[in-house]
Amino acid sequence: MTVLFERVALIGIGLIGSSLAHVMRSKGLAGEITGYAKSEATRAKSVELGLVDRVFDSAADAVKDADLVILCSPVGTYGALAQEIGPALKPGALLTDVGSVKGAVVRDVLPHLPPGVNFIPGHPIAGTEQSGPESGFAELFINRWCILTPLPDSDPKAVEALTGFWRACGSNVENMTPEHHDLVLAITSHLPHLIAYNIVLTAADLEEVTSSEVIKYSAGGFRDFTRIAASDPTMWRDVFLNNREAVLEMLGRFSEDLSALQRAIRWGDGETLFDVFTRSRQIRRSIIAAGQDTAAPDFGRNPPKAQ
Amino acid sequence: MTVLFERVALIGIGLIGSSLAHVMRSKGLAGEITGYAKSEATRAKSVELGLVDRVFDSAADAVKDADLVILCSPVGTYGALAQEIGPALKPGALLTDVGSVKGAVVRDVLPHLPPGVNFIPGHPIAGTEQSGPESGFAELFINRWCILTPLPDSDPKAVEALTGFWRACGSNVENMTPEHHDLVLAITSHLPHLIAYNIVLTAADLEEVTSSEVIKYSAGGFRDFTRIAASDPTMWRDVFLNNREAVLEMLGRFSEDLSALQRAIRWGDGETLFDVFTRSRQIRRSIIAAGQDTAAPDFGRNPPKAQ
Repeated sequence: MTVLFERVALIGIGLIGSSLAHVMRSKGLAGEITGYAKSEATRAKSVELGLVDRVFDSAADAVKDADLVILCSPVGTYGALAQEIGPALKPGALLTDVGSVKGAVVRDVLPHLPPGVNFIPGHPIAGTEQSGPESGFAELFINRWCILTPLPDSDPKAVEALTGFWRACGSNVENMTPEHHDLVLAITSHLPHLIAYNIVLTAADLEEVTSSEVIKYSAGGFRDFTRIAASDPTMWRDVFLNNREAVLEMLGRFSEDLSALQRAIRWGDGETLFDVFTRSRQIRRSIIAAGQDTAAPDFGRNPPKAQ
Repeated sequence: MTVLFERVALIGIGLIGSSLAHVMRSKGLAGEITGYAKSEATRAKSVELGLVDRVFDSAADAVKDADLVILCSPVGTYGALAQEIGPALKPGALLTDVGSVKGAVVRDVLPHLPPGVNFIPGHPIAGTEQSGPESGFAELFINRWCILTPLPDSDPKAVEALTGFWRACGSNVENMTPEHHDLVLAITSHLPHLIAYNIVLTAADLEEVTSSEVIKYSAGGFRDFTRIAASDPTMWRDVFLNNREAVLEMLGRFSEDLSALQRAIRWGDGETLFDVFTRSRQIRRSIIAAGQDTAAPDFGRNPPKAQ
């Protein structure tokens, strides 16, 4: 048990914030944890679950004297929060976040920070479709990547300290620029979520096939999309509003590729279909080899059991 | 242990065929199981694993004297197989299949059958991304739906017998017309697979983001698509070639809906995005309530464990 930061402030206590609280508790990474949440219910639940030592209804109060401040609310809230907490941040404090976009976060947060505060944006690539303070667990970050996007004038010692924190949470840490992060995540996360939301919408609006049929027969593939399409709507609205350019770029490419497949189906071009389907298998195998998923049939959704 | 059919012939021994063999063995549903597979390796493996009692390199030989014949190979092979086995089928035999399309199966198989054979197309909505005779397991069909599409002159007793067989495998059985089946599956299974294949392709072809980055950060959502995009390429080529009209119809609707979301992103219309994302949550909840998926965070991919 090594205390890495004497006082840590969590601004927002949902899936990620509560998971961070659990791992800090279980590994003794923080001397004290303070928290801010917008809703009364979340504040009460956070105390009840022992996630934080003290909870505040003002973000500025929560960050007072904190050595590490972590923004864990939807990215659309960061600008106003930075404006509020900026003057209250302790000189030398380390400020980071867990938002799914990084360019817009730098744009919204940086102007409000006083000199002497180390701002190092971050993004743990970890999550489930659950949300809220009850949904967190200490193991969420284990063997997952956490991307840090240090700014050109970030203090190397602060980057090192934040890297150590995420490693202690079980993550592997990688650095890149905010711009590159936003491109990478546009294809690995934002576009998949958009597509998933969209197909669920398409299915819901059919006249020839009822919703109850869609639900009944979803094991054929549809349900794979619904998991990520059940993610927090506020968080995802903010992601798309704040990573517009990169998402539209990836979406354009996706639509082009889809038109080519559509054409292959229309013309009965089995060879093209077979080639595409064969290539995608290789990518799946690479993901399993990289330890980012399990090869268990059906994700163990339907575990074999004796009758 | 009740023997439902004295002799069962499996034509094709992949994921579904081998899973059927396992469940027939474990529940004693068949007096004897014969099998046909195109490849020597699959035939040898099927005997080695004890899936079949006798294996043949001719489908006509495998179906001789069989009471129940189940086509378990890709649907593109059915026409030629029906032509071959038609004359060898025992009068009164029950012929079914497990193909993912039904209209085209009726079109390809029916003309080759002698009078007195009961042909009842079927489709178990169950599977994993694995394939081959080693991939099967007896529990694959438990609590899954199996759709039967009896023909207008199907013998009700044969329908009843086949229904009993699938129930003994653990499935719930539903009847519908081949045409309606193909529409339902186009949205619940075929379109999701096409979309999944397509996004994997889009990701693989990017210049700004490397394949290794896509793989590393796939936990952000992308990996959910890769599971179904790793399914058997031959089977899926045949599905798209044989359910063209319904797939193109669903794809057209999907693309329209996607254009609307694209527009909302371009115009910064957060309200539309939030509404769409909120609606899709409800569908996810219905799928879990219907028992077709688990609510376990992350499908239990990353099970919490003590450190």
